Amino acid sequence: MNKVKIGVVGIGNMGTYHSKWIAEGMIPELKLCAVCDTDPKRLEWAKINLPENVVKFSDASAMFRSQLIDAAIIATPHYQHPPLVIDAIGCGLHVMSEKPAGVYTKQVAEMNEIASKSDKVFAIMYNQRTDHLYRKMKEIVDSEEFGQIKRTIWIVTNWYRSQSYYDSGGWRATWAGEGGGVLINQCSHNLDLLQWICGMPVRVRAFCHEGKWHAIEVEDDVTAYMEYENGATGVFITSTADAPGTNRFEVMLEGGKLVCEDGKLHIFKLDVNKREFNLVNREGFKEPAFVHSIAETDGQSSQHIEVLKSFAAAILRGHPLIADGVEGIRGLSISNAMHLSSWLDKTVSLPLDEDLFLSELKKRISTSKIKIQ
Amino acid sequence: MNKVKIGVVGIGNMGTYHSKWIAEGMIPELKLCAVCDTDPKRLEWAKINLPENVVKFSDASAMFRSQLIDAAIIATPHYQHPPLVIDAIGCGLHVMSEKPAGVYTKQVAEMNEIASKSDKVFAIMYNQRTDHLYRKMKEIVDSEEFGQIKRTIWIVTNWYRSQSYYDSGGWRATWAGEGGGVLINQCSHNLDLLQWICGMPVRVRAFCHEGKWHAIEVEDDVTAYMEYENGATGVFITSTADAPGTNRFEVMLEGGKLVCEDGKLHIFKLDVNKREFNLVNREGFKEPAFVHSIAETDGQSSQHIEVLKSFAAAILRGHPLIADGVEGIRGLSISNAMHLSSWLDKTVSLPLDEDLFLSELKKRISTSKIKIQ
Repeated sequence: MNKVKIGVVGIGNMGTYHSKWIAEGMIPELKLCAVCDTDPKRLEWAKINLPENVVKFSDASAMFRSQLIDAAIIATPHYQHPPLVIDAIGCGLHVMSEKPAGVYTKQVAEMNEIASKSDKVFAIMYNQRTDHLYRKMKEIVDSEEFGQIKRTIWIVTNWYRSQSYYDSGGWRATWAGEGGGVLINQCSHNLDLLQWICGMPVRVRAFCHEGKWHAIEVEDDVTAYMEYENGATGVFITSTADAPGTNRFEVMLEGGKLVCEDGKLHIFKLDVNKREFNLVNREGFKEPAFVHSIAETDGQSSQHIEVLKSFAAAILRGHPLIADGVEGIRGLSISNAMHLSSWLDKTVSLPLDEDLFLSELKKRISTSKIKIQ
Repeated sequence: MNKVKIGVVGIGNMGTYHSKWIAEGMIPELKLCAVCDTDPKRLEWAKINLPENVVKFSDASAMFRSQLIDAAIIATPHYQHPPLVIDAIGCGLHVMSEKPAGVYTKQVAEMNEIASKSDKVFAIMYNQRTDHLYRKMKEIVDSEEFGQIKRTIWIVTNWYRSQSYYDSGGWRATWAGEGGGVLINQCSHNLDLLQWICGMPVRVRAFCHEGKWHAIEVEDDVTAYMEYENGATGVFITSTADAPGTNRFEVMLEGGKLVCEDGKLHIFKLDVNKREFNLVNREGFKEPAFVHSIAETDGQSSQHIEVLKSFAAAILRGHPLIADGVEGIRGLSISNAMHLSSWLDKTVSLPLDEDLFLSELKKRISTSKIKIQ
């Protein structure tokens, strides 16, 4: 079998899993040839836990130029994603970036431009796009059977983290180290799914509370209001301090309602479109009739493994990706807009003023407790 | 049995029900002696549908001064509530006002001052306070067993109304006729329950969309963000255009979570307080354990009848009211704050700047399609 020779940059966290999954043959079309980490302890771990013939690097650039690999997975801290992706593509490699695409869209836009001009495959690890319930939601919304979206409400407060999580790395939850809190770290999946299923908002008004529940610099509690091009509105609520948290994603459409909660997708389908009913109905208090059902899905949520398989298939056979790397900018734009809205205490329009965001972020980086950028 | 002789002002809508319930003896301690309406057709209705000995008035002031009654129920359009309450109390009557207390707090504050100085019973028809689930929520929050509130989220979009409802009266959904839309009309119960159970917010940032889904002057779609004195935040979402709507009220507390939806109150009780767990736990991703249960309640939701019974009992025996009339200002303050925040496009603090609100309301009344105030 034709295999893609791959190297993993950053084996401190998710990269550890990627390396092991590939080494164990869980993605048959990927062959782990190299790993890279700046921390000698992690290379020590690799020596013990990965096959002997996997070459260890302490410098990503050297790995990219080693001729040992066709593709790279970037699983480093967020700020390093774009420069490493750019370097890897420049070395003629296909690239899979961990989420988020980066910390600020200005940097990510530059990465996207380079990726778009190259003939290499550029993917992003939006593994939650493989979830059967979110796929079904997208399928229903895209089908237009339910008409246009009127309202989105995602309460995703089940990202509980206690202080010890934040204390586990000096870079964690700092402006210089991560460039944000729950929005950029935990919610990068949710913000991607939100735009993937419901499209991009055009205006955002957010209330981000920094260090509200934990001794951290960045936000751990966010409530955001959004407006869409067609007049629809949305609310996004998240926190790392609610227990037990809620994960309930409601999409109200002209033809009914979708509610994803507790591992089920509830479908409420109207007999007649709301807009028509509103004009035709003559009984003031009467509501349009509807049918409630639980969505039938394929039940599959293959997560990271499928994303990696599709990456290999894209390289070898031009198979479609689960998530194109350039799409990473969308969820990040929403995240950046939420931060900026909260910092400026006003509504922010999308597309974002990238320079303004970066200058505001830099102010925070300059007073950050750590200076590792 | 000692009975309170009562008169009802306004028998076009809720007053019709109150009159019939009392006439039918459903509130044994109230005796219907008079009704009043400015519309001759409604008095015609009264002639046919109410006992012969119920005296009909076309002028409320005349009824108040008739010596036929000890107490009055005010069930007129919103703007008239405060002046009628003031007049009735001035005539030495006990008063039950329909909700809302009024349209703007300046007027309601004046009413409250007069009511507070009198020795008459002043009540307000917050019948949803009798609902067993909301009573249970209040009981749990008040008990402090779950500690302080961290977050409130009420999605109450199940107030569907079609255009024909708004077209059923020229005064409906106009600034001059009703002084607001879904907030003041449909949500006066929800905003009262919100403050009754969770307390008053101190800051409000709202996004009210006027005539968004219907051909009306006032708001039919609202998303509001709130902040409480203790740092807790809240979201309130309502609309008269969602179908099927949602009614889901979540209260996140230090010791767990309450979720009221679909006729059930879900209780999620942590084994240990979140604040302690956060500091003590050493496993970053671990969440505090909890027990989920469905609240056991008395199942009673006696609504208007109980509110009227307690009103009679308060007059005859000093029994506590379901809702003291002066408390009507609280939910109205939140409603006014939401309107004002949206009109000014900024965050508004509570207590409200009543003069500013009134001047903004007057601007809208002056261009209102009807001028009935």
